Amino acid sequence: MAKVLSGKEVSEQIRDKLRDEVKKLPLAPVLAIVQVGGREDSNVYIRMKKNFAQSVGVDAKHIQLPKSTNEKELIRKLDELNKDKSVHGIIVQLPFDSEHPIDANKITNLVAPHKDVDGLSDENAGKLLHGQVDGTNSFLPCTPNGCMELIKRSGAQIAGANAVVIGRSKIVGSPMAQLLIWNNATVTVCHSKTKNLKEVVKSADILVVAIGQPLLVKKDWIKPGAVVIDCGISSIPDSTKKSGSRLVGDVDYDDCKDVAGAITPVPGGVGPMTVAMLISNTVDAAKVVSK
Amino acid sequence: MAKVLSGKEVSEQIRDKLRDEVKKLPLAPVLAIVQVGGREDSNVYIRMKKNFAQSVGVDAKHIQLPKSTNEKELIRKLDELNKDKSVHGIIVQLPFDSEHPIDANKITNLVAPHKDVDGLSDENAGKLLHGQVDGTNSFLPCTPNGCMELIKRSGAQIAGANAVVIGRSKIVGSPMAQLLIWNNATVTVCHSKTKNLKEVVKSADILVVAIGQPLLVKKDWIKPGAVVIDCGISSIPDSTKKSGSRLVGDVDYDDCKDVAGAITPVPGGVGPMTVAMLISNTVDAAKVVSK
Repeated sequence: MAKVLSGKEVSEQIRDKLRDEVKKLPLAPVLAIVQVGGREDSNVYIRMKKNFAQSVGVDAKHIQLPKSTNEKELIRKLDELNKDKSVHGIIVQLPFDSEHPIDANKITNLVAPHKDVDGLSDENAGKLLHGQVDGTNSFLPCTPNGCMELIKRSGAQIAGANAVVIGRSKIVGSPMAQLLIWNNATVTVCHSKTKNLKEVVKSADILVVAIGQPLLVKKDWIKPGAVVIDCGISSIPDSTKKSGSRLVGDVDYDDCKDVAGAITPVPGGVGPMTVAMLISNTVDAAKVVSK
Repeated sequence: MAKVLSGKEVSEQIRDKLRDEVKKLPLAPVLAIVQVGGREDSNVYIRMKKNFAQSVGVDAKHIQLPKSTNEKELIRKLDELNKDKSVHGIIVQLPFDSEHPIDANKITNLVAPHKDVDGLSDENAGKLLHGQVDGTNSFLPCTPNGCMELIKRSGAQIAGANAVVIGRSKIVGSPMAQLLIWNNATVTVCHSKTKNLKEVVKSADILVVAIGQPLLVKKDWIKPGAVVIDCGISSIPDSTKKSGSRLVGDVDYDDCKDVAGAITPVPGGVGPMTVAMLISNTVDAAKVVSK
């Protein structure tokens, strides 16, 4: 029976640590959360970020711009926040809910690198590709950084291990592979064009799945004892539930939990870690300024 | 018997293509090559770059600063070149031969991204990690870009292939893996901490070696028919040669050439491609300005 890697529990430990760190700072760290429009899913995520922030003494300012906001106006707002010395971290909630076309990539790169607590700018990504993974002078993307924390806490040896990452997204897969490489794992990156996926996954001592395909990974894909990290979260129909649906990951948890050595549940695995790492980055940003 | 992937030949074809492109431009592209001191190996490389540039009509300006140059003076020089509109591309020849400590990483990142024809700045690297591989609005690092060109010309199917990269350097291994990932290969990155190197290499349809260990890869490491790209170049003792030494790569060419489907020789493989890609990037930089 696999060890359950509870992101919920670990994020509580991080919460306690951050609360202590913030107390020692001469100022409250400030995070600006910029939203265009009011997508319901975005509202849920923003609420989670605000709650975590508040619980450790970080001031999360929710800047909700109307759906009528265009790219130029959004750029002006970001400029202002970049220049505002009282703001330590800035995140732009994606996707935009705007009446106008807005280039998400362009906007992500307009956040000043030293305030880019989501770690999604090209500059922070380049530092990661170049092996800068200690978190000084750069920000690591929150979801992969949260995954690394869980992998480390699994007790597995990372150096020399075979790690497989399914997915190559900007937010999870690509930076995840880099974090594993620079923690000395031998890393294979798989994606939609991979031909022998099951066979490759079977070689993994450490497996991170971030491909957005509910219940893709089954028991017979998993090397016995492997660490399995599931970044997927999807709602699938389930007639046994009152709501008629349930949340699942990219890994079939019930099927795999007897084979894996350690595994993250969904929900309660990677999700809470992402929020914890975002607030941790914000506290780090404030530390630099208050030095 | 493997197809020999002659970088010498392919770079000649690129030379012809670039010569035609430059003729059509309203101005001669200008490349600034900044050197501190006068290391003999650097001088050889710079001469090769200048010769290739000259042969296609690119004006390569060699800016050789004295060994007494310190970091501040070098930064001032780069500032000047960044601002100089007549200069389209800038490269900083490493390593420095200075009497003072100079932070190579800092200096590399001070080259303006739109003039960074070596493609080594964090910003260009981040674009690569984020999947921007078409060469518009960014520069691809020269050696891996040259390797991709040779892999494409081998005729091998890249999408869905198993590719293995040995090495994770900023200049070759790390960007190489990204180029292969975004050309839809399933990519495994190996390095000094990899445990089962031979076994992993044996799974490769495409193998790129950039680890700096002369003659490391032997026949029995190679999957029959694989494309083998060798970025290594080392001088080893050889009493049968007049000079007492010969140049070899990280792959034992003579041993592997009957098993591989296609293979690069050393010298005359990857080396000439690096120079061709540098000048190609410089021509691209000038094209953007002259639009």
